[in-house]
Amino acid sequence: MEKGVPHFREELEALLARLLEMGGLAEARVRDAVQGLVDRNTSLIDKVLAGDDPINRLHIEIDERCFRLLALHQPMATDLRAIVAAVKINTDLERVGDLAVNIAEAAQRYTTHPPVKKLIDIPRMGTLALAMLHDALDAFVRRDTQLAQQVLNEDDTLDGLKTQVFRELLTYMLHDPATVEPALDLILISRHLERTGDHATNIAEDVIFIVSAQDVRHHTADKG
Amino acid sequence: MEKGVPHFREELEALLARLLEMGGLAEARVRDAVQGLVDRNTSLIDKVLAGDDPINRLHIEIDERCFRLLALHQPMATDLRAIVAAVKINTDLERVGDLAVNIAEAAQRYTTHPPVKKLIDIPRMGTLALAMLHDALDAFVRRDTQLAQQVLNEDDTLDGLKTQVFRELLTYMLHDPATVEPALDLILISRHLERTGDHATNIAEDVIFIVSAQDVRHHTADKG
Repeated sequence: MEKGVPHFREELEALLARLLEMGGLAEARVRDAVQGLVDRNTSLIDKVLAGDDPINRLHIEIDERCFRLLALHQPMATDLRAIVAAVKINTDLERVGDLAVNIAEAAQRYTTHPPVKKLIDIPRMGTLALAMLHDALDAFVRRDTQLAQQVLNEDDTLDGLKTQVFRELLTYMLHDPATVEPALDLILISRHLERTGDHATNIAEDVIFIVSAQDVRHHTADKG
Repeated sequence: MEKGVPHFREELEALLARLLEMGGLAEARVRDAVQGLVDRNTSLIDKVLAGDDPINRLHIEIDERCFRLLALHQPMATDLRAIVAAVKINTDLERVGDLAVNIAEAAQRYTTHPPVKKLIDIPRMGTLALAMLHDALDAFVRRDTQLAQQVLNEDDTLDGLKTQVFRELLTYMLHDPATVEPALDLILISRHLERTGDHATNIAEDVIFIVSAQDVRHHTADKG
C-alpha cells in the first residue's frame, strides 16, 4: 500500500507547514487593515481590499492535502482528528482573511470622516487577536494543550476590550451626532477583531479535542 | 472488517438524520430570538438565553459519529468529503445556536427602550436566513447542487437587506440621539442574521465541493 506513496509523517509535516504559512498570510492582512486604520493610510487599506488570491490558492491546496492524507493513509485516532481539524482550521484562516477585508472596508469609510478619538483599545484588540491566532496555530502544530488553554483565557480579555470600546464610543455618539457614522465603523471593526479572536479560540478548542481524544485512547489501551 | 460493524449506509443515514435534527434546533432558537424581539416577548427571549444544552449534546454526538465512520469504514472520494463536510456543518450549526444567543442579548437590551420603528426588514432577514439554512441542509442531504447554488444567490438578497437596515437606522440615529442605543442593537441583530446566512452559504459551498469532486473523479475514470 505504501508503494509510491510518500511517507505519512513527511506529508503531515508539509501540511502543517502550509497551514502555518496560511496563518501568516491571514495575520498579515488583519495587521495591515488595522495599521491602515490607525495611520489613516489609504494605500495600505486599498492593498487589503485588492484581494487575497494567495490565501484562496493556499486554502484549496491545504484542503487537497488533507483529503489526500485521509484517502491514501487512512490515519487513525489522533492523526485522524488532527487532519480533520486541519480542514476546519483551514476554513477558520480563510475567514480571518475575509475579516481583514471587512475591517479595511470600515476603515476606508472611517478615513472619510474626522477622527472620533485617538485609537488605543482597537489596535490593542488587533495585537491581542493576532497573538491569539499565532499561539493557537503554534499549539496545534505542537499539540500543546497548555498554550491552547492560554488562548481560551485570553478571549475574555478580548471580550472585555470590545465592551470597553463599545461603551466609550456610545458616549461619543450620544453627545455628538457628527460622530455617529465614524464611531459606528469603529464598533464594527472591534466586532471583526473579536471574531478574529473567536477563530483563534475555535483552533484552540480543536487542539484540546485532538489531545483529549488521545488521552482517552491511552486510557483504553492501559485497561486492555 | 465488516464483522460487528453496522453497515456504512445505515450509519451515514443516521448521521444525516442527526444533523437535520441539529439544524432544526438551531433554526428554532434563531426563530425564537427574532420573534422575541418583534413581539417584545421577554419570556421568549429569556428562553433563548437560558442555554442550548440539547444542541451542545448533539454537537458532540455528531462529531463522534463522523469520526467513527471515518475510522471504521475508511470511506473514499465523495463519501469521505461528505463526512468531513458533516464535521464542518456541525460546527456551523453550533455557531448558529450561539448567534441566537447574541440576537437574544441585543433583543433584551432593545426591549428596555421605546421601539425605534416598526420592525419589517429584520424579521424578513430572519425568515430569509432561516430558509437559506434549511435549504442548505436539504441540499447537503440530497447532494443537490442546484439548491445549493440557490442558497448562494439568496445571500445577495440578505446582504441587500442588511445594507438597507443599516442606512435606515443610521438616519434615525443621526436625527434623534434617543434612538442611538436601541438602533445600534438593531444593527447588531441584522449583522447576526447576516452571519446566520453566512453559515448557510458555508454549507452550500461544501455541497458544491462534495459534488464537484465527484465530477472530477468521474472525469478521471472516463479517461482511464
